Amino acid sequence: KGHSSTLNGYRKSCWYEEEIEENLRWSFALNSILHTGETQYQDIALLDTKPFGKALVIDGKLQSAEVDEFIYHESLVHPALLHHSNPKTIFIMGGGEGSTAREILRHKTVDKVVMCDIDEEVVEFCRSYLVVNREAFCDPRLQLVINDARAELENKEESYDVIIGDLADPIEGGPCYKLYTKSFYESIVKPRLNPGGIFVTQAGPAGIFSHTEVFSCINNTLRQVFKYVVPYSAHIPSFADTWGWVMASDTPFTLSADEIDLRMKQRIKGENKYFDGKTFTSVSTLSKAVRRSLDNETHVYTEGTAKFIYGYGHASAYKHNQA
Amino acid sequence: KGHSSTLNGYRKSCWYEEEIEENLRWSFALNSILHTGETQYQDIALLDTKPFGKALVIDGKLQSAEVDEFIYHESLVHPALLHHSNPKTIFIMGGGEGSTAREILRHKTVDKVVMCDIDEEVVEFCRSYLVVNREAFCDPRLQLVINDARAELENKEESYDVIIGDLADPIEGGPCYKLYTKSFYESIVKPRLNPGGIFVTQAGPAGIFSHTEVFSCINNTLRQVFKYVVPYSAHIPSFADTWGWVMASDTPFTLSADEIDLRMKQRIKGENKYFDGKTFTSVSTLSKAVRRSLDNETHVYTEGTAKFIYGYGHASAYKHNQA
Amino acid sequence: KGHSSTLNGYRKSCWYEEEIEENLRWSFALNSILHTGETQYQDIALLDTKPFGKALVIDGKLQSAEVDEFIYHESLVHPALLHHSNPKTIFIMGGGEGSTAREILRHKTVDKVVMCDIDEEVVEFCRSYLVVNREAFCDPRLQLVINDARAELENKEESYDVIIGDLADPIEGGPCYKLYTKSFYESIVKPRLNPGGIFVTQAGPAGIFSHTEVFSCINNTLRQVFKYVVPYSAHIPSFADTWGWVMASDTPFTLSADEIDLRMKQRIKGENKYFDGKTFTSVSTLSKAVRRSLDNETHVYTEGTAKFIYGYGHASAYKHNQA
Amino acid sequence: KGHSSTLNGYRKSCWYEEEIEENLRWSFALNSILHTGETQYQDIALLDTKPFGKALVIDGKLQSAEVDEFIYHESLVHPALLHHSNPKTIFIMGGGEGSTAREILRHKTVDKVVMCDIDEEVVEFCRSYLVVNREAFCDPRLQLVINDARAELENKEESYDVIIGDLADPIEGGPCYKLYTKSFYESIVKPRLNPGGIFVTQAGPAGIFSHTEVFSCINNTLRQVFKYVVPYSAHIPSFADTWGWVMASDTPFTLSADEIDLRMKQRIKGENKYFDGKTFTSVSTLSKAVRRSLDNETHVYTEGTAKFIYGYGHASAYKHNQA
Repeated sequence: KGHSSTLNGYRKSCWYEEEIEENLRWSFALNSILHTGETQYQDIALLDTKPFGKALVIDGKLQSAEVDEFIYHESLVHPALLHHSNPKTIFIMGGGEGSTAREILRHKTVDKVVMCDIDEEVVEFCRSYLVVNREAFCDPRLQLVINDARAELENKEESYDVIIGDLADPIEGGPCYKLYTKSFYESIVKPRLNPGGIFVTQAGPAGIFSHTEVFSCINNTLRQVFKYVVPYSAHIPSFADTWGWVMASDTPFTLSADEIDLRMKQRIKGENKYFDGKTFTSVSTLSKAVRRSLDNETHVYTEGTAKFIYGYGHASAYKHNQA
Repeated sequence: KGHSSTLNGYRKSCWYEEEIEENLRWSFALNSILHTGETQYQDIALLDTKPFGKALVIDGKLQSAEVDEFIYHESLVHPALLHHSNPKTIFIMGGGEGSTAREILRHKTVDKVVMCDIDEEVVEFCRSYLVVNREAFCDPRLQLVINDARAELENKEESYDVIIGDLADPIEGGPCYKLYTKSFYESIVKPRLNPGGIFVTQAGPAGIFSHTEVFSCINNTLRQVFKYVVPYSAHIPSFADTWGWVMASDTPFTLSADEIDLRMKQRIKGENKYFDGKTFTSVSTLSKAVRRSLDNETHVYTEGTAKFIYGYGHASAYKHNQA
Repeated sequence: KGHSSTLNGYRKSCWYEEEIEENLRWSFALNSILHTGETQYQDIALLDTKPFGKALVIDGKLQSAEVDEFIYHESLVHPALLHHSNPKTIFIMGGGEGSTAREILRHKTVDKVVMCDIDEEVVEFCRSYLVVNREAFCDPRLQLVINDARAELENKEESYDVIIGDLADPIEGGPCYKLYTKSFYESIVKPRLNPGGIFVTQAGPAGIFSHTEVFSCINNTLRQVFKYVVPYSAHIPSFADTWGWVMASDTPFTLSADEIDLRMKQRIKGENKYFDGKTFTSVSTLSKAVRRSLDNETHVYTEGTAKFIYGYGHASAYKHNQA
Repeated sequence: KGHSSTLNGYRKSCWYEEEIEENLRWSFALNSILHTGETQYQDIALLDTKPFGKALVIDGKLQSAEVDEFIYHESLVHPALLHHSNPKTIFIMGGGEGSTAREILRHKTVDKVVMCDIDEEVVEFCRSYLVVNREAFCDPRLQLVINDARAELENKEESYDVIIGDLADPIEGGPCYKLYTKSFYESIVKPRLNPGGIFVTQAGPAGIFSHTEVFSCINNTLRQVFKYVVPYSAHIPSFADTWGWVMASDTPFTLSADEIDLRMKQRIKGENKYFDGKTFTSVSTLSKAVRRSLDNETHVYTEGTAKFIYGYGHASAYKHNQA
């Protein structure tokens, strides 16, 4: 009984579905729903998807997929740590998933990593279920702090060689907006960097259209505060988009591709899958369209003006840059 | 990181999706995928769906959903058993899910139920996971046989008061086609019915368009073989369609709604949710459109002619009856 | 270029998708999008769907599909007109699509039909594009009024043999709620019925679970006001549900199935596809589950109490009646 | 009537849906279905999508979307034409959409473009409906030939400065497989290139996983035949993937980014949106993962061995490169 299936096979029947934009959907066939939970701050799920392996989903948005999270995390961590002459102490804003810490801890120079995430339950969830990060969570160099990253940096006197932003995008009214403003970078981040220190942050979608959502503004905000700013981007299949990061410092970034490769060999345990010197050349050389658009960006994230000047228009992001 | 969710909530993200027809889809939000398995004959899954509770899916087709399976199983079992003067022995062709047996075993007159299903692993799966049928599976009156129902009826000499068909639809080339032919009914089923015996079978979709797929042919085939044939149908929400059954005997069906209600009170343990005398009046009185179409049906399922005359056209089923 | 299609065919690619409930979706393959528009009150579209032909969609909800709208409109119109001894004047609240008028105008007894719809643009849209209703729109007996149906009935002195409600469901805060309250029926509808007059209204989903949304409340509200009330329901494939109507009068409904058939022959031009005397027996005999639930319904739609007592819970409708 | 919409808005209801991989779907909200047709060879549709504007779909696969087709066509045409010292005559295999011709015709050096597409009806469809290419279709330098590109090159004696492959991917048994083999490149393409001539072809998906489907094999096949081969890739949002091209010649490719920019200024009418010298640096520098995988590719497309050695596994493409 039940409607009869046709004789020549049947279609995949369980799907994860995400709205990338209001008018754009992305769906993965599912093997299973491994775990679901609800924390004080957000909904969380671990899915086993057919195209991308295990996938961490927070508030209905894919955070990280087993088969390609290395692109995001290698890109977030290694450019900054390799450009630093001798990175010993690292502060992660967010990063509760553990993968950012895992990549940092592969650097032999590193003595201490502070991972500061506000949501203890997400950290516990990831520590329990993400097998690939288990070793990192147990590394004695890792210090886990459950706190708002802004409060933590503001109230403690410690400073760091590299500070890494692994937070949700700066959406006006969203939970992380304040961690992307000019005043935050000026008064809180910069004073906590040691001389020669480097700040790097994930910077949202950086596709040929989607980079106008937040990538170009984060880049423009950082160049108000730091002397040297390097935006870069890479396509992440499970995100259905090119993703962006911005690295900033008052010390210039001068390594050649070969010098990057040399430092990788000297400092990093194990082998990268995605990142090396040539990859950095490629990802830090933006296409004409995005370069122009970043050059012309004038918006700066500030706390006072945010709500007046930033009309968050998720739906129209793909249209911004067409003219 | 990951695409930011909009501020005003996010959409359900995991879905079960079924193609009811080639051009028609039906999707349920999922809580979880409870179990999946593969037997010698078919793929099987138990899902926890938001709109319909736990759902048993075989080969990508919903078989039964927790919240409304009672409509299907009460309709399959009670009309035949109540119209019989004293049903003691019952044979189920298929029925491995256990729900058909559960409804039969509520009848106090019943001494023995033979459930004959070909797929032992499906039976084991359902016995393990369908809590609602656990008691039925343990009832000493139930005798489980793993065999092809046709072979079982053919090779044994036993006969029954009621024989119930709880099998997949008669699709040409499909696994159950031979269990719906005129010769099967004539030479195998009828000889195994005791005097006054009743045969009833599920008979596929019976909606105003979909009844031409198999319902009208099953009805027409049975009226070649039995003197009295009663087709009836009911809407099952999780199937996204009205479903059909056909009851047949050489003894006339003469109970009034009140007589049905009286027998229910005398014979059935517990209370039905869906079926009673008035319900039978309603479901066995077909609409003008379906009545006409059943009257005019000339196709008979036979083994020799099947492949030449039955062009299985799932896709166009909704169009058959429009002219 | 573009992703290569697999060799063995490809899937239908354009779909209409509707959320029947928050957790339940229904999708039709599309041939084309014939027309789209926006009126003062609502969004409107005419689609050409593969499974159901041309489909009228208002505010993202299917209103009527070419292949099965006859079930809805025959069920809305003919029971009331046939039970009336000599229906000459008819008032339609809503009905701008034209199909309700079309069915009424098939009755030879009818002298005058007032169709009172608030949205002139929807009426114009349907008059232009729904070929099947063109003749009805041109019938000299049809009088079209653009107005709120409540105001129209309240402010004019005319009375009618049959008044028909063809409006959106009574959702608290929705546009039509006030046209389903006890006081509306008592003070406005009833005084406008001639002696022996009949009121009938569409009454929302009437499935085994979904009838608790509005069907049982409309039925209960009407039985506070009229002596005789007949709820009935039928499965409409394109709605993915059983639908309900309620007919009410102070004169009893006493026709047998044969008497209905006789009046149909005498009074109606052309032949019905769906409705006849036996069909009425079937659709007006509800299943045990729905009958019980209607008997036990205590809620009455009133203007004062609406917002306090009616918690509109679309999402959980399928769960209401499970216990 | 119809299911009532909830009060706080409703969801987009018409969608285009494509299976990128067997387990991966990509869906765009639709404004309308502009045109559909069926040619001798394929199904064709022009859709108006909300996220990507007008979209050309052939056999259920997106070919080109209004808002981002410039990425594909600038990348296909300009690298080869700019690296050539003085490109006058160009042959396009396929390209019936007209956009490839449009980009070529912007080069002032070009005297003659032969566009050789097998499907006259697709060419007519695009000529009629793709406004953006109308001027190109009327350019007197364009010569349209309806023929199989292989036959056309084989049977005519003419030779060209640049030959461009704008064809469907080389799927074993697919229509274009023979236009990607080593013997085709050796015996048919190469002899038709003038001294210093360049061949370039679209080369399928080139994402971090998907490049193993065909990109790495096309690249490896070409390096069996030409002395200098340059694979490059770019993310195309509407394709939900990074796309690949391979450029090949017996003359080395030696231009710096600045030299490319200079030639662009001298030779190309109007301004590119996407491509310039730096963009070429970025897109022709592949990530570590893809570089490794291309280096290690050993498969060569040949006519004899194709069916034995190439097991086309679309479904598992995203998994190939994970280890």
